[in-house]
Amino acid sequence: MESTMLKIKQLLVDLYGCRADLDDDELLQRVLEEAAEKAGSTVVNRLVHRFHPVGVSVFLILAETHISIQTWPEHDYAAVDIFVCGEGNDPSAAWEVIRERLEPESHEIKEITRSIGERRA
Amino acid sequence: MESTMLKIKQLLVDLYGCRADLDDDELLQRVLEEAAEKAGSTVVNRLVHRFHPVGVSVFLILAETHISIQTWPEHDYAAVDIFVCGEGNDPSAAWEVIRERLEPESHEIKEITRSIGERRA
Repeated sequence: MESTMLKIKQLLVDLYGCRADLDDDELLQRVLEEAAEKAGSTVVNRLVHRFHPVGVSVFLILAETHISIQTWPEHDYAAVDIFVCGEGNDPSAAWEVIRERLEPESHEIKEITRSIGERRA
Repeated sequence: MESTMLKIKQLLVDLYGCRADLDDDELLQRVLEEAAEKAGSTVVNRLVHRFHPVGVSVFLILAETHISIQTWPEHDYAAVDIFVCGEGNDPSAAWEVIRERLEPESHEIKEITRSIGERRA
């Protein structure tokens, strides 16, 4: 029987000292939608949640995976997760859009490789 | 000025050969809700998306972070992301619930440490 493992690159990014307004949920959704588009991904669903007094979570479900952001505006900090798969999809392109729009002073990227599919003994 | 960095453990888990029905969105939501509870987290919002012909994504937004699952039932494969923070929260407890309920033949855990908050130069 044929193995169907697919290696997928997932980016976990911590953004520090962002100049953008991390409490602006509409801005964050726009940025993520643009990032998904640049990555070559199709958005099939989304969830935007506002915390009180501050903080936003945005999840975009893509054709097979997701992009998310969660913000702590009181620290100018955001946690981004870019998990895209599929022919021609490019998580780095999504990250470039987010970096340009949120303007972090510094950031830390962790690049994780995941094996999706069937693992046979 | 005081630094407010918080080290958070994030678990990325690939589940192979699951015995549970990975196309059952209600089951998956129940499992994640139970996992969040066991981790000591509070669910503040959720998004469940069904793919056609098969596949489910469930995102739970927690008081500060999230738990998610995305499934490929055709491969008995699921990708789980457990990102919980806060006093007394335990991502391992969430993972134990998911492992027991979805019964993977094998799995691979990646444990990532993220630094949340303000980074000063």
